[in-house]
Amino acid sequence: MLKKSPLAPASFPSIPEIPGVTITGQHVGLKAGPKVKDMMMACLAAGTTIAGVFTTSKCPSAPVDWCRKVLPGGKVRAIVVNSGNANAFTGIAGDRVVDATVEAAAKLAGCKKEEIFVASTGVIGQPVPPDHISKRLPKLFKALKPNSWQLAARGIMTTDTFPKGSVRKVKIGNAEVTIAGFAKGSGMIAPDMATMLGFLFTDAKIPAKVLQSILKSATDKSFNSITVDSDTSTSDTVLFCATGKGAKHPDVTSAADANLKDFRRALEEVMTDLAIQIVRDGEGAQKLVTIDVAGAVSAASARRIGLSIANSPLVKTAIAGEDANWGRIVMAVGKAGEPADRDKLSVSMGGVAITKQGQVVEGYDETPVAAHIKGKEVHIGVDIGLGRGKARVWTCDLTHGYIEINADYRS
Amino acid sequence: MLKKSPLAPASFPSIPEIPGVTITGQHVGLKAGPKVKDMMMACLAAGTTIAGVFTTSKCPSAPVDWCRKVLPGGKVRAIVVNSGNANAFTGIAGDRVVDATVEAAAKLAGCKKEEIFVASTGVIGQPVPPDHISKRLPKLFKALKPNSWQLAARGIMTTDTFPKGSVRKVKIGNAEVTIAGFAKGSGMIAPDMATMLGFLFTDAKIPAKVLQSILKSATDKSFNSITVDSDTSTSDTVLFCATGKGAKHPDVTSAADANLKDFRRALEEVMTDLAIQIVRDGEGAQKLVTIDVAGAVSAASARRIGLSIANSPLVKTAIAGEDANWGRIVMAVGKAGEPADRDKLSVSMGGVAITKQGQVVEGYDETPVAAHIKGKEVHIGVDIGLGRGKARVWTCDLTHGYIEINADYRS
Repeated sequence: MLKKSPLAPASFPSIPEIPGVTITGQHVGLKAGPKVKDMMMACLAAGTTIAGVFTTSKCPSAPVDWCRKVLPGGKVRAIVVNSGNANAFTGIAGDRVVDATVEAAAKLAGCKKEEIFVASTGVIGQPVPPDHISKRLPKLFKALKPNSWQLAARGIMTTDTFPKGSVRKVKIGNAEVTIAGFAKGSGMIAPDMATMLGFLFTDAKIPAKVLQSILKSATDKSFNSITVDSDTSTSDTVLFCATGKGAKHPDVTSAADANLKDFRRALEEVMTDLAIQIVRDGEGAQKLVTIDVAGAVSAASARRIGLSIANSPLVKTAIAGEDANWGRIVMAVGKAGEPADRDKLSVSMGGVAITKQGQVVEGYDETPVAAHIKGKEVHIGVDIGLGRGKARVWTCDLTHGYIEINADYRS
Repeated sequence: MLKKSPLAPASFPSIPEIPGVTITGQHVGLKAGPKVKDMMMACLAAGTTIAGVFTTSKCPSAPVDWCRKVLPGGKVRAIVVNSGNANAFTGIAGDRVVDATVEAAAKLAGCKKEEIFVASTGVIGQPVPPDHISKRLPKLFKALKPNSWQLAARGIMTTDTFPKGSVRKVKIGNAEVTIAGFAKGSGMIAPDMATMLGFLFTDAKIPAKVLQSILKSATDKSFNSITVDSDTSTSDTVLFCATGKGAKHPDVTSAADANLKDFRRALEEVMTDLAIQIVRDGEGAQKLVTIDVAGAVSAASARRIGLSIANSPLVKTAIAGEDANWGRIVMAVGKAGEPADRDKLSVSMGGVAITKQGQVVEGYDETPVAAHIKGKEVHIGVDIGLGRGKARVWTCDLTHGYIEINADYRS
């Protein structure tokens, strides 16, 4: 058993019932060892719309293939997730597992197979019998409840050391609706949907097309702006379900609808909260690192520079060693491949200016920076000095704990 | 002091005198602590031509700026290298150090400033007085000898645990010439010239333009096909000097000259030998990993897929843990962003086929693979199954040693 991350939040948030959603997480015996939860199921009311964002991997898992195939239907009645086995790189056997799972789930939920979404997380490449997941479904189905959020968040964990949940209440017109979600992930985490699963739910009534558009843009600023180890998984999946069973609100027909402004912001907050929790649970993480890049030629360029810093093993080991080695930040800016001019570059840590115009500031005193880097949260600021593009990304330090967890994951 | 890498070769090779080259490495006190060599100087006969390849970093060091500026002249009379301070991100102060260094070296060598090449390696961002290097030059100049190759190789080391040299004799026409070189690097190593310095010398007579062309293509297959930690330095420099003082051979006027075929192969061998020595000295390395990618849509695509595997922290930690977790290799192929088809992908380790057509081979027995991965040299084979592009890249495992070395480098 892994020790809880020192960066974990004090507790799982209190998430209320969301009309139209019942949910659970259970131990069904997919994972060996102690009685950990290893499966999650959510059932959604008829009429629930769905949006999804998936891994960019060219070798996606069988569940990702399935979700991509049925997503254009825009409707969902159940989501089934298992941990312990990723059902990735399992060939035809993997497709059979998905087939059996969605068939069993559709029977239980009383819907079409195309309204079942699935995800799997765990070891890649281990074939399992077709009924590996489906035969466990009845137990899950019986346990469904309106507010078993924490059980559900636990049911999808792998090397995570704490369950990750978030919730916001927000208005569309005068009607208050809820957005809640949970996520997993602590290794194989990089932008473009790294090994992470995220499930979001709202009782608002939003057409699938609109839901897809707002999910995509919130993903870029949250889950796609974090990195633990630069590795991208075969299985990453974020799903967002809108039941339409909450308080009645003005009809929404476009992502640009002014009535959706607060809703979109709240969604971004929930997703960013979950994303940062994933970084806080980064394998071996001892420090949460927030990187603000400004002055890049575009927002996309700023994000790439931020991720180059966030993915640099040398930056991450320096932070682990509480060494304010800002030269490595300069190195990481330089290697990003984005427009940068050494002589216009400014770097700060903990709000203290370290460099200006291509060299260390006169009379630079490392004392406050050295104190800052000893804390649990480290801030790096970079100003490229070329334009107005900015971005914020998050990462953690690279420690002995990461090596320990990953040098012997399967055994 | 770092312990010698367990992957180090038995000894430094015996490199003969190369007519037209005198060289040395000395302790001059640039680095604190024990009496390690910290400076290198080479002098070249009049008429020596030069080629160079440099870091792709957008924040290059002052020495790299200088070398780029004078390289078009194609002539060299001396090379001066210091370790301990990278003279990178040092603003105008850094340019002054280069100025003073090349001026002093030109006076000693009796040549123009534009015939002096410089390189610096060590901590980034620490300004030093202008005469930091120049005032140490006379000591180096006096010590120059025709065959102090090992001293020179030691003079450029930073976290390296052994000096790296290589030599080949080869014919152009009927005349035997020599190619010899030495290199440094063990961290901040990634393709596109990572923190590495390499210096190559031959007594063949080759015009600068031809030299540049053959150096560039050999670099892609050697130094640009290795990675230790994916980090690209501000200071990477490879220089290749041809004195023309060896046995007389047919005139060479083009890189495509048939007489150069063996010479080009020998150069590639010397550079690949040095590149692999750098990986063998990778910070914390316990295993040398060779990755062969075949069946990609092009050689460039194969190289990118190979480097995606070679840079994956999850692949590298699995190898450190002697865990034949081939699922992570699939993950790394998938994240490379290159054309790949899960269902055509084959993976092998130690020559044992593990997967075929998107799933594990029937009756796969892990025993021989588990035995292979316990050795000091690990081989990974990947066949993408789409085309004829192939590439070979090298990396090392990611161990606690890497964290130890890098979490506290400056102190």
